[in-house]
Amino acid sequence: MNSKNKKSNKSALHVNKGVDQPPSISPKARKNFQKFRKKSLSLDDYINGIKRGDRAILSRAITLVESSLPAHQELAQQIIEQCLPLAGNSMRIGITGVPGVGKSTFIESLGGEITKRKHKLAVLAIDPSSERSKGSILGDKTRMETLANNPDAFIRPSPSAGSLGGVARKTRESMLLCEAAGFDIIFIETVGVGQSEIAVHSMVDFFLLLMLAGAGDELQGIKRGIMEMADAIAINKADGNNKDKANQAKAEYNSALHLFPPSPSGWTPKVVTCSALHNIDIDTVWKTIMDYKELTTENEYWPAKRNEQAKYWMYETINEKLKSHFYTQEDIKTKLQNFEADVLNNRKSSFQAAQQLLDEYLKK
Amino acid sequence: MNSKNKKSNKSALHVNKGVDQPPSISPKARKNFQKFRKKSLSLDDYINGIKRGDRAILSRAITLVESSLPAHQELAQQIIEQCLPLAGNSMRIGITGVPGVGKSTFIESLGGEITKRKHKLAVLAIDPSSERSKGSILGDKTRMETLANNPDAFIRPSPSAGSLGGVARKTRESMLLCEAAGFDIIFIETVGVGQSEIAVHSMVDFFLLLMLAGAGDELQGIKRGIMEMADAIAINKADGNNKDKANQAKAEYNSALHLFPPSPSGWTPKVVTCSALHNIDIDTVWKTIMDYKELTTENEYWPAKRNEQAKYWMYETINEKLKSHFYTQEDIKTKLQNFEADVLNNRKSSFQAAQQLLDEYLKK
Repeated sequence: MNSKNKKSNKSALHVNKGVDQPPSISPKARKNFQKFRKKSLSLDDYINGIKRGDRAILSRAITLVESSLPAHQELAQQIIEQCLPLAGNSMRIGITGVPGVGKSTFIESLGGEITKRKHKLAVLAIDPSSERSKGSILGDKTRMETLANNPDAFIRPSPSAGSLGGVARKTRESMLLCEAAGFDIIFIETVGVGQSEIAVHSMVDFFLLLMLAGAGDELQGIKRGIMEMADAIAINKADGNNKDKANQAKAEYNSALHLFPPSPSGWTPKVVTCSALHNIDIDTVWKTIMDYKELTTENEYWPAKRNEQAKYWMYETINEKLKSHFYTQEDIKTKLQNFEADVLNNRKSSFQAAQQLLDEYLKK
Repeated sequence: MNSKNKKSNKSALHVNKGVDQPPSISPKARKNFQKFRKKSLSLDDYINGIKRGDRAILSRAITLVESSLPAHQELAQQIIEQCLPLAGNSMRIGITGVPGVGKSTFIESLGGEITKRKHKLAVLAIDPSSERSKGSILGDKTRMETLANNPDAFIRPSPSAGSLGGVARKTRESMLLCEAAGFDIIFIETVGVGQSEIAVHSMVDFFLLLMLAGAGDELQGIKRGIMEMADAIAINKADGNNKDKANQAKAEYNSALHLFPPSPSGWTPKVVTCSALHNIDIDTVWKTIMDYKELTTENEYWPAKRNEQAKYWMYETINEKLKSHFYTQEDIKTKLQNFEADVLNNRKSSFQAAQQLLDEYLKK
């Protein structure tokens, strides 16, 4: 009560009501923008735009792929179907590494190397965690400035959050559209700490793991199994005082990779050092990727892997959808909790619980 | 014609018809055996028999678990349900290694060490390939002779062939019965070349990988990813001339394991050398396993992992059964082939094909 009195009109602490904040975007501009955005394109507009490599239209087609509106999805599927015969003529490269390893700088540097060689590069990201993708979008915008202004490069930030399966589908379909638009090198970037590396590994031709020297702590963040998927390990920031440490790490990784069983590709994973920031040995990374391409084109592992991947995604999608249909049934959800408790308390065996739930589901 | 003439009755090459071979099993014995086998046991007979550790009855209960007859399966599930409260009080150890690494000799040697310490040991095998399990059965019989005659050990050869899911279920359920019968150490053996290691890893407390010195060629057989699952690597045949090579391999594996990210158990995988044939350092292997038990009991990873595994097998079984129901539908089988061809020929995207198949399946 006291304080209220003090703030009366006559108080020296009284503050007059301020004027309204002006809108941050001019209403007229907003209207124009919305009109522009609403001008919907026909299927043919999309197909022709993509075919002639129109980046604005490619971008809008990817937005359709990422949309969850049924009408958008339907149109997206029609676009994809017509783009499929044009897709596939690219080299798909997965790039992973924990935050702090210098992924954006590396992609800028390798991307510059690639576009210098008359390639057209599209950079996509896969990252199912919403928190992190918000970070990435900002990060990509500020960090990949050179590449973003490069006319031969196309950068698309992570799709908005969703399940890994959904994000993987969106990324794979966006990749097909980029290929149809004439991009012959595709980077797919992940953060190296989650399940998404397996998804990326299953949609690229070459899988590159970025590491730092000083093998101890930096590795902590890399998930088990990722090192075994790598076709090459690039030890970044190999410059200045760090050079010796990087070379030592290279030797260590080389002898560790030697202990892994050989991949069916016939390729032995390579370890290289580089400095993305100072543009040192980035061409060596590119040469390694080219060596891989030569070897696996010759021994026909390349097309075989592509076919395997196309089949993998068909079966993977079926299996995911089967599961999601089962686990989203309301009665199953309730029962599942009770059954889980029964299993943990030794009242039911895991198999009995599963069988009983399945019997009820299939009866319907 | 000529040759026929030569073999006429009058020919010196004529061979008289031999006498009938006597039956290899006396018909009387066979009858007795069948009578004995047919004497069916009641549920209570099974439960009581298992509770008092009757090996013959345990063996027959496992046969029920492995049987595909519905009546057997139903009885088996009832037995398991009643045995569940008695199960779980054991240490479950997975042992893997490629053929030739000396698995059977190792199991005999470590098994002897264990039973000397007043433990009761059950040895089960998981091996979904029919060809190989036939080999194993013979192999186990001739090779594990000492252990087979040890009153504190129970050896059960691989269940007959089947899908990995089926074999895994059988092995896990057999394990529960062995535990209810008082066996407090369970070995689950695999051959280290297939998918089955993941299944075994998901049902044991400790996963031991057997290796040989001379890291190069021997590794070729070990599947990618298995080394990362190992809680310990034992380099076998570290005797005589092989000793130096084994120590060198130990150092190499140690530095390679160092590069892996740490396991959530808080345990750093150990590498030990041993010679199962000459019984050298087998007690070190056992001590390593005990160290693991102590650490993970203290930090409570042990019970947490057990709970995770029980849940894992419930969800895994649900997912397997969902898939098997889908993929065994006759119309789906036919369509799947056409759709696969469409996907490989870029007529459909992997996701479109999956969605269309699912829509049809769920409509029914």
